[in-house]
Amino acid sequence: MVITSFVGGNQIAMAKTSPNLVITTSDVENMRSAIKKEGKFKRTFIANKASVDKQISEAITVPMPKDGGGGYTHERHKKNYKLMYDAGIIYQLTQDGVYADYVRDMLLAYAELYPTLPLHPKRKMGKQNPGKLFWQSLNEAMWLVYTSQAYDLVLSSLSTEEKATIEKGLFRPIVKFLSVDSPETFNKVHNHGTWTTVAVGMTGYVLGELDWVEQALYGLDKSGKGGFLIQLDELFSPQGYYNEGPYYQRFALLPFITFAKAIQTNQPEREIFEYRDGIVLKAIDTTIQLSYNKLFFPINDAIKSKGIDTIELVNGVAIAYGLTAGASLLDIAKQQDQILLTGDGLKVAQALDKKLEQPYQFDSVAFGDGNDGKQGALVIMRQNVGGEQAVLFKPAAQGLGHGHFDKLTWQFYDKGEEIVSDYGAARFLNVEAKFGGRYLPENSTWAKQTIAHNTVVVDEKTHFNANVKMGNSHHPELLFFEKNDHVIISSAKIDSAYKGVSLKRTMALINLPGQEQSLVVDVFDVQSKKKHQYDLPTHYKGHLISTNFELDTQLTSLPVLGKENGYQHLWLKAQAQPKAGLSQITWLNDNGRFYTSSSIMDGDSSLIFSQIGANDPLFNLRNENAFINRATKSKNHTFVSVLEPHGEYNPSKEFTVSAVSTIEKLSHKKINNIDVVAISFEGNKRYLLAFNSTESFKSNQSNTFSFDGSTYQFDGRFKLFEIKE
Amino acid sequence: MVITSFVGGNQIAMAKTSPNLVITTSDVENMRSAIKKEGKFKRTFIANKASVDKQISEAITVPMPKDGGGGYTHERHKKNYKLMYDAGIIYQLTQDGVYADYVRDMLLAYAELYPTLPLHPKRKMGKQNPGKLFWQSLNEAMWLVYTSQAYDLVLSSLSTEEKATIEKGLFRPIVKFLSVDSPETFNKVHNHGTWTTVAVGMTGYVLGELDWVEQALYGLDKSGKGGFLIQLDELFSPQGYYNEGPYYQRFALLPFITFAKAIQTNQPEREIFEYRDGIVLKAIDTTIQLSYNKLFFPINDAIKSKGIDTIELVNGVAIAYGLTAGASLLDIAKQQDQILLTGDGLKVAQALDKKLEQPYQFDSVAFGDGNDGKQGALVIMRQNVGGEQAVLFKPAAQGLGHGHFDKLTWQFYDKGEEIVSDYGAARFLNVEAKFGGRYLPENSTWAKQTIAHNTVVVDEKTHFNANVKMGNSHHPELLFFEKNDHVIISSAKIDSAYKGVSLKRTMALINLPGQEQSLVVDVFDVQSKKKHQYDLPTHYKGHLISTNFELDTQLTSLPVLGKENGYQHLWLKAQAQPKAGLSQITWLNDNGRFYTSSSIMDGDSSLIFSQIGANDPLFNLRNENAFINRATKSKNHTFVSVLEPHGEYNPSKEFTVSAVSTIEKLSHKKINNIDVVAISFEGNKRYLLAFNSTESFKSNQSNTFSFDGSTYQFDGRFKLFEIKE
Repeated sequence: MVITSFVGGNQIAMAKTSPNLVITTSDVENMRSAIKKEGKFKRTFIANKASVDKQISEAITVPMPKDGGGGYTHERHKKNYKLMYDAGIIYQLTQDGVYADYVRDMLLAYAELYPTLPLHPKRKMGKQNPGKLFWQSLNEAMWLVYTSQAYDLVLSSLSTEEKATIEKGLFRPIVKFLSVDSPETFNKVHNHGTWTTVAVGMTGYVLGELDWVEQALYGLDKSGKGGFLIQLDELFSPQGYYNEGPYYQRFALLPFITFAKAIQTNQPEREIFEYRDGIVLKAIDTTIQLSYNKLFFPINDAIKSKGIDTIELVNGVAIAYGLTAGASLLDIAKQQDQILLTGDGLKVAQALDKKLEQPYQFDSVAFGDGNDGKQGALVIMRQNVGGEQAVLFKPAAQGLGHGHFDKLTWQFYDKGEEIVSDYGAARFLNVEAKFGGRYLPENSTWAKQTIAHNTVVVDEKTHFNANVKMGNSHHPELLFFEKNDHVIISSAKIDSAYKGVSLKRTMALINLPGQEQSLVVDVFDVQSKKKHQYDLPTHYKGHLISTNFELDTQLTSLPVLGKENGYQHLWLKAQAQPKAGLSQITWLNDNGRFYTSSSIMDGDSSLIFSQIGANDPLFNLRNENAFINRATKSKNHTFVSVLEPHGEYNPSKEFTVSAVSTIEKLSHKKINNIDVVAISFEGNKRYLLAFNSTESFKSNQSNTFSFDGSTYQFDGRFKLFEIKE
Repeated sequence: MVITSFVGGNQIAMAKTSPNLVITTSDVENMRSAIKKEGKFKRTFIANKASVDKQISEAITVPMPKDGGGGYTHERHKKNYKLMYDAGIIYQLTQDGVYADYVRDMLLAYAELYPTLPLHPKRKMGKQNPGKLFWQSLNEAMWLVYTSQAYDLVLSSLSTEEKATIEKGLFRPIVKFLSVDSPETFNKVHNHGTWTTVAVGMTGYVLGELDWVEQALYGLDKSGKGGFLIQLDELFSPQGYYNEGPYYQRFALLPFITFAKAIQTNQPEREIFEYRDGIVLKAIDTTIQLSYNKLFFPINDAIKSKGIDTIELVNGVAIAYGLTAGASLLDIAKQQDQILLTGDGLKVAQALDKKLEQPYQFDSVAFGDGNDGKQGALVIMRQNVGGEQAVLFKPAAQGLGHGHFDKLTWQFYDKGEEIVSDYGAARFLNVEAKFGGRYLPENSTWAKQTIAHNTVVVDEKTHFNANVKMGNSHHPELLFFEKNDHVIISSAKIDSAYKGVSLKRTMALINLPGQEQSLVVDVFDVQSKKKHQYDLPTHYKGHLISTNFELDTQLTSLPVLGKENGYQHLWLKAQAQPKAGLSQITWLNDNGRFYTSSSIMDGDSSLIFSQIGANDPLFNLRNENAFINRATKSKNHTFVSVLEPHGEYNPSKEFTVSAVSTIEKLSHKKINNIDVVAISFEGNKRYLLAFNSTESFKSNQSNTFSFDGSTYQFDGRFKLFEIKE
């Protein structure tokens, strides 16, 4: 339907087609015919219609804003935008005026309420920008992204008078509030900025206010120093990695793809999906790659249950499929198991009905960080040995305010589960009783601190002294990322996390030739001219089974491990002083597999077993376990360890196999510039992993070293030698 | 094939058909034809054959017994019996001599080894009967149950000489070792006795030694004071409940059903499946009923991951289906997802191929305990309100040596998960590093103690002072178990758990009329003439979200809660002294639902929050949480509480609803002999649960009481009143 609107002021007279944002009139035609045929799309339509029917049978409720995240009015206003959007879709599909009228009536209620609203009573004083309907303007922008679409969907049903009332009472004031009145958030290169500019831009298209669109794209002053395009330039690396990490990448994705789609519909001449070499599509694909067993890698402030089935990525996959028709996207869509009632959603549904999906390939990749891709990297290594293994290695940049102080940390996943874990964010999303559903105080005092991660802590202090600005202005350097058939290996360093201390870590995920065995090799080299205490924690998931050394366990009283920087949250459960040689710690994960961490001990180091939970008056923290390898009064120290998945505990079928590590010896030598890690297994199987992590390395350099009386040679950064004896 | 054997001694000359135990010659005919047709049976055959082919391609290994549970020789001998059995089946199905020869060669190896064996080096001195191949004779009996069947399966392929060698070297000595040489175990009315008598009886059928069968059925002296039949009489209640609980019921099931089937095949005139009103079939069905979301209720010494897909119940369901063709058994078989290569397995496979399954009905039942069904009861209550709820209430008998001191304890399950939990056994089955894979010392010091359960502990002592004999000689009394459309309710008492203290508990699982809401009401009445300390723990599963009272949390040092009887394993995390009135504790389970326990506090009681883990030098215990309601210096005290599932935490879809309890008031009054629990919800909804739990109660007695100025009347034990205001 084409509606011609003639309006005054700075508005441009334009022929308005409705709907014309993410969903177009031609989409609607296809969708109307699809709901007459059996299939996933029709089934989804029937279910959504039933849900909308139930909700619109109740009275419209537009309450006075009162509660913070998770509280009643917060959730009600969230429900309302979703409901208006859904009812708008059902209106387009059924052409039944009852749905349009419902949306109209709710919009009119908002148009009456909105001009009367003060700032939200639960706003966080002096911090984030407050909203009016919600405690923070971020939610207000999200509300508008949906509501502008809902309005677009019912536009054709409204009288000129109704439109005038709604636009005057609601859309113009909220746009003003979010843009001109909040310039700081609007121009910010940050996900709050994205939501805000997109909300304003989408509304601009619907109201024919192309000036708002310009501001959305280029910033309030249209200089290009703020706005959507610079966000696409700055917030993503060339490979499409978003510098706050996967959790916020997923969150940020929705406004990016929604607005890109709306731009494509309204101003195809902008070629937005080609912008920056196709950065929007790359960002969607990278979001998928940043997952393991359907869940996103939980680095930085991340809620751990978020995964590829989140609505943002459902939208992302649908839009990407609509543009590319890539069959492997359907593999993800199938796992998401959610059909969207949009034009792209229909394409996905029809392709799944035809079973066109092809396996999606998860790769080992180093995602360069920063807008130039050169500010460190997030490294993902994958193998498949009796289940899928993944190492996430993080020589990435800080990632702004939601970043954690965890330079060079790692995580390990196997057989579907976390094995060496990251705490993620300390937050119970929208649970009012837990600090209003916001980030808990323990997010700063624990989750962001270095000791909460699997990387070296110097003198019980946090990287960059927990200074975000410092963190943002420094980043690790990726020395190399290489792979062959059996080994994926990466090395990185950072000298700025601690003054006068250089940290260099090399990690390899190995699929041992000739054995059904994966291994993670970890060489963490710490150098300083002064003496320090170095702690390397391993946050393990599972039940401790055995150690090959004696434990001095606290039996009747648990002391706290330290005073600050996260140490105040750790109970000291046990200590141990293993003899020089090989120390082994074995735990059993819920996936039924055993894991042994074998480390080289120098006789001076000690091991500490800890549990999270001290100084936690309101039981906010999860009581998870770690062991910490501690070197005291050291200048240079190299932590060398191997993590080995093995065996199976199957109480249901009553068998247990290979509950004991088969590693018998482990050694590490630095020979010239070459690190040589030798691993000996039961039955005289022995492997050498040799690598050259020098900065001066020349590509495809040849390396030679002598070891145990033999001479070895390799080209390039590394080689795995199998020694037959 | 019919083999006629003429032998001397006390053996009976008989015509031996082979195979003729669980699998018969006519089964074999059907199975041979089934593997030619597509379907579940053929697919299983192909998979099993491939597995057997792989294993028999390796050299036969019959090692000298050396290791305890989970160790190499232990697992090897277990694998061997399974492999001989499987190879025997494949021989029957393919008629390929290579499989029979493999079984023969392994049997000959055992026949050579067995006569040379001393008692097992890892036997437990002075305790359980030792084995020779295994550390305990129980495993030896299990070995023989399988191996006698394997022998039966290949019998027709063996020469007279081979048979003589195998019987002389292996079967006769092992039968002698298990029967005549171990009279105590053989005659014991206990699961070890069952395995032993069955092993001997099965071997008796194969070797034509009907005297052994008589001994198996009636005890060594054939008096009927020992043996299989008295085990069927004594170990099961009339409803088929096995008095050690579901974990051992499942374990014990296999020999019962296997031998019953062999008796049916060889001596149908014994009508074994009709014995004691069909007790064997009842036991199979009861085992299924004793599960929630596929897992067995983990009372007593139980490994918690055991469920309906265990091989014992796969056999049970197949045999029961073979006898009854009950379509609801196929529902269970489908969930088990394992097809047996037996005659009954074929019937199940063919029925599943035809999709004949009908939903299996899980019921609310009070399973009377003891051989007369009158020694207390195990009570299961079920509702279905937005997911399946189950209350397990345990006024059951002690359950012999594997029983826990947990009279009147309870557990609660909802939406697939444990909410109020039982620790189960402290054991890592077959994990050598954890106390040889046997029950850990903490099984006695923690898991069996009263404080490890959800029932009253008097003066920090364990029921019956942890004396098994005392426990076995007393049991609670079930006062009533009743149900209507909305309420399932049960009451029980015991006076003997503590001297001079009487314990009476009434529990109800309610599906509130007119609301999507389930509730558990718990009234625990403790009476004594002397003053005591009463502790009522609730072992909850999930993360503590909020309390409506202030917590005094231990921040920098965790003390231990007590000295003995399990208290020495509890860290004291926090204490609280709520005011008189309603105390509420809310936690969030992994199933995404909130649970609030609302209790009436009298102003003198206190609450303790604890975590398991003190005095645990080797990290053997799981660090689980509880809160303990403590009344000090009380003579009579009634603990009254309501457990309320509510709301949803959905971080993936980013919403949280109803995170707060809607219960506003709770009161309890004893009016004459009637307990009246009044529960008020937000919005003026109010319910009264009234019940009469007196022992002198006459069936369908009429009860009248006044409450808040109104008069109420009900017939029978209880009534739920909805008060409209």
